[in-house]
Amino acid sequence: MPFVRIAPILGVVVMVFALAMLVPLAVALGMQDGTAAVWGAPMGLALLAGAAVWGLGRRAVGAEPDLQPRDGMLLVVLAWTVLPAIATVPLLLFYRQHGGALTFTQAYFETVSALTTTGATVLTGLDALPASINLWRGLLQWLGGMGILVLAVAILPMLGVGGQLLRAEATGPMKDTRLTPRIEETAKGLWSVYAVISLVCLLAYRWGGMSWLDAWIHMFTTMSLGGMSSHDASFAHFNSPRLEWIATFFMLVASGSFALYFAALVKRSPARVWRDAEWRGTWLLMIGSSLFIAWLLVQRGVVTEPAEALRLAAFNVVSVASTTGYASTDYLQWPVFAPIWMLLLSGVATSAGSTGAGIKMVRLLILLKLARRELTRIIHPRVVSPVTLGGRAVGADVVYAVLAFMLVYGGTIAVLTMALLLTDMPFDTAFSAIVASVNNLGPGLGEVGPAGNFAGLTAPQLWLCTLAMLMGRLEMLALLVLFTPGYWRK
Amino acid sequence: MPFVRIAPILGVVVMVFALAMLVPLAVALGMQDGTAAVWGAPMGLALLAGAAVWGLGRRAVGAEPDLQPRDGMLLVVLAWTVLPAIATVPLLLFYRQHGGALTFTQAYFETVSALTTTGATVLTGLDALPASINLWRGLLQWLGGMGILVLAVAILPMLGVGGQLLRAEATGPMKDTRLTPRIEETAKGLWSVYAVISLVCLLAYRWGGMSWLDAWIHMFTTMSLGGMSSHDASFAHFNSPRLEWIATFFMLVASGSFALYFAALVKRSPARVWRDAEWRGTWLLMIGSSLFIAWLLVQRGVVTEPAEALRLAAFNVVSVASTTGYASTDYLQWPVFAPIWMLLLSGVATSAGSTGAGIKMVRLLILLKLARRELTRIIHPRVVSPVTLGGRAVGADVVYAVLAFMLVYGGTIAVLTMALLLTDMPFDTAFSAIVASVNNLGPGLGEVGPAGNFAGLTAPQLWLCTLAMLMGRLEMLALLVLFTPGYWRK
Ligand SMILES: [K+]
Ligand SMILES: [K+]
Repeated sequence: MPFVRIAPILGVVVMVFALAMLVPLAVALGMQDGTAAVWGAPMGLALLAGAAVWGLGRRAVGAEPDLQPRDGMLLVVLAWTVLPAIATVPLLLFYRQHGGALTFTQAYFETVSALTTTGATVLTGLDALPASINLWRGLLQWLGGMGILVLAVAILPMLGVGGQLLRAEATGPMKDTRLTPRIEETAKGLWSVYAVISLVCLLAYRWGGMSWLDAWIHMFTTMSLGGMSSHDASFAHFNSPRLEWIATFFMLVASGSFALYFAALVKRSPARVWRDAEWRGTWLLMIGSSLFIAWLLVQRGVVTEPAEALRLAAFNVVSVASTTGYASTDYLQWPVFAPIWMLLLSGVATSAGSTGAGIKMVRLLILLKLARRELTRIIHPRVVSPVTLGGRAVGADVVYAVLAFMLVYGGTIAVLTMALLLTDMPFDTAFSAIVASVNNLGPGLGEVGPAGNFAGLTAPQLWLCTLAMLMGRLEMLALLVLFTPGYWRK
Repeated sequence: MPFVRIAPILGVVVMVFALAMLVPLAVALGMQDGTAAVWGAPMGLALLAGAAVWGLGRRAVGAEPDLQPRDGMLLVVLAWTVLPAIATVPLLLFYRQHGGALTFTQAYFETVSALTTTGATVLTGLDALPASINLWRGLLQWLGGMGILVLAVAILPMLGVGGQLLRAEATGPMKDTRLTPRIEETAKGLWSVYAVISLVCLLAYRWGGMSWLDAWIHMFTTMSLGGMSSHDASFAHFNSPRLEWIATFFMLVASGSFALYFAALVKRSPARVWRDAEWRGTWLLMIGSSLFIAWLLVQRGVVTEPAEALRLAAFNVVSVASTTGYASTDYLQWPVFAPIWMLLLSGVATSAGSTGAGIKMVRLLILLKLARRELTRIIHPRVVSPVTLGGRAVGADVVYAVLAFMLVYGGTIAVLTMALLLTDMPFDTAFSAIVASVNNLGPGLGEVGPAGNFAGLTAPQLWLCTLAMLMGRLEMLALLVLFTPGYWRK
């Protein structure tokens, strides 16, 4: 039974996650915001539950369970569905205490949104929430980002969904094919880089003028590309060009592969970053799009000052393209090309090995080269030239996996959009809500746009978006695999 | 030079096309509608031009030019761009005579729309147009349908875009690899079936209560899945349930493969049709969708009578799913799921070898089976089961071609939609206009919906839609190939 084999690890994950509540608990106690009880009780219960799962699991499977790759899929699916459920408890307790209306559906949407680094929210009046609650939302995203980094390198290669592309950049030869040692080895390297850049980002925000609390929260949500703000006005709250440029820079950084950064660091070769075709693609696409949309804003007379147009375009385009989802203005008021282009970018602009989601730049590059080759092949059927990326030939199995991924990606968006339309949501809202959820972006168009949020959605609508966020985060296949009868057969 | 090699055939095609103007000319003379001159002069000029191209080409290449498959691509691209240009002349002359405003862009959009069997129109006041003009628009669609049948079996296999799937159903072993005899042999069989079913359709419309003129026009536009009506109110003009059911039936028939019908006829085995997986997919999807949407209409209280809901749903769903594009009501007023689902169906419901366009049912079936296999393969990597369709294994090269087609199909829609958005068209209008054009469907959402038309579009918008119609009709690749430098190199 896969459930039994993974129980010990799941128990540990739950316990570690419970300990993360120490952070908001400390803030609650330090700032006397009256929410200490909201954190203490759920933390204790989660610790107990985790210990029980760990203990029972260990007794059943022995001290050193031999995990199979397919167990890994169940583990990540459970991690991204059970942890958000635990994370809802403080939210629900807090809202009950203060007489607010928050259903479990809404709370679960909110925590899944945070842990998948989608950043869509059903909460309003963020500025009035206690510091501990806002910090918790930010921390969930940052922890989600840590999970994603491990997911991308250690779990996804099994799914054949392009994760294998990262292998060459990973931390060295990994001869041990068992799951646990590989995850540990990889995780250490990636998390160190993530932590170091996060620290620099924190200090930059503080230097830029944020309070320590805001700096922590926005560091969490920038580095994870989560984008949940602690202010209803999102980044416009600060009204600070300097902070916007700092955020733009770190969103660009976090859109690159942390595995690449780690490799560059180990080899002491910063040029390695620039030489990486995917990294160049990510940066050039985002910067090029920012310049074009800045030009469009000036040309259409939306903004008169070129410098202001560039700042607005750079911040909002990079924010959406990187799947962060901050906004410094309601960009739905821009010429319609801009928001749709940005939504499209959110599906392709980030690198594999970043905390972004969607198709990712490496797949886009392979698809573009593939399309060019296919055209050549029609004219010269006998000339078979391999698809190359960064000077290396891309194997036929990788090309095939990329095409299959595109199929499932498109199918998921189509099916979930149609389901959402059955709830009579307008087409552009429904389509963009699903795209923004699957890409773990956050804001869409219309009601769920940058000036709105997901608070007005009904329970079925929220569950569909929650499913979309999970599908996107687990690169579609991990979740689907669990629904095939073959998975559960011995 | 490809241009020279295909010149004799192109010349013949132009001359035959010019002779088709005899039909509206005869009607103009018979009905005394005052448009005889509009037809005579262009026909004479086109005959002369065709003869010149034929003669010059023959002198340059000798009596029997040895056509290569790649010449076929240029030929079909020229046929679908030059013939519409010729077809605009009578329209432009007529509108100039009567002081109406019709630009070349609009006229070319209209004739490309007809010949690609898209059926989108920029004309209003259709009921007031002379019979000859409306008949010409219908005839263009029917002739376009004849072209499509040849295209699908004789030309597309070279492109590796799934045309090879038809081979097993085609008219027998085709050992001659040269282009011309293969086209001739195939064309004869398909056109006979097309003509016979067209005749039955004509008589059924007449029996159902149409005038002979309406019966001819609507037979033309039903069998070709073109859907241009000669009435501003489209099929609602007749207000006749019997005619709607007749149309529904023949749209269903024309959504199946004419190659399949021909094979069933030759083998005297009607059961062959039902046993065909693609045909069953097409019919079951359309009928199932009709039933579901009829239920939705009753359940949401849009229509109270179940029988009326079924008639409305069946006619409009089959019309859109089959890429015909007639409307008997403004279905954009239905629950939003319905029109979007119908738009989606237009991309997948018709069979290859029909006069429909888009992805087609055979590719959808392969994609669905592929998705299921991929999920199995993640769990059991060593079990490699082939994708099968109708009991036969589908080769890896076909699977690959289908995936590559999907890539180009999605990319085309994305790029053209973005281009249309640069003209500040609202997103749902732009997206649906491109989808409806690429699928050769006709009506989209919003301004270009079933209650509207393309008359309000600017020239750049019309050109983008024209390009989309041509891309869709030529299965994307034929047009793209001509833009690669490799094509023109010796
Ligand atoms: K996000
Ligand atoms: K049509």
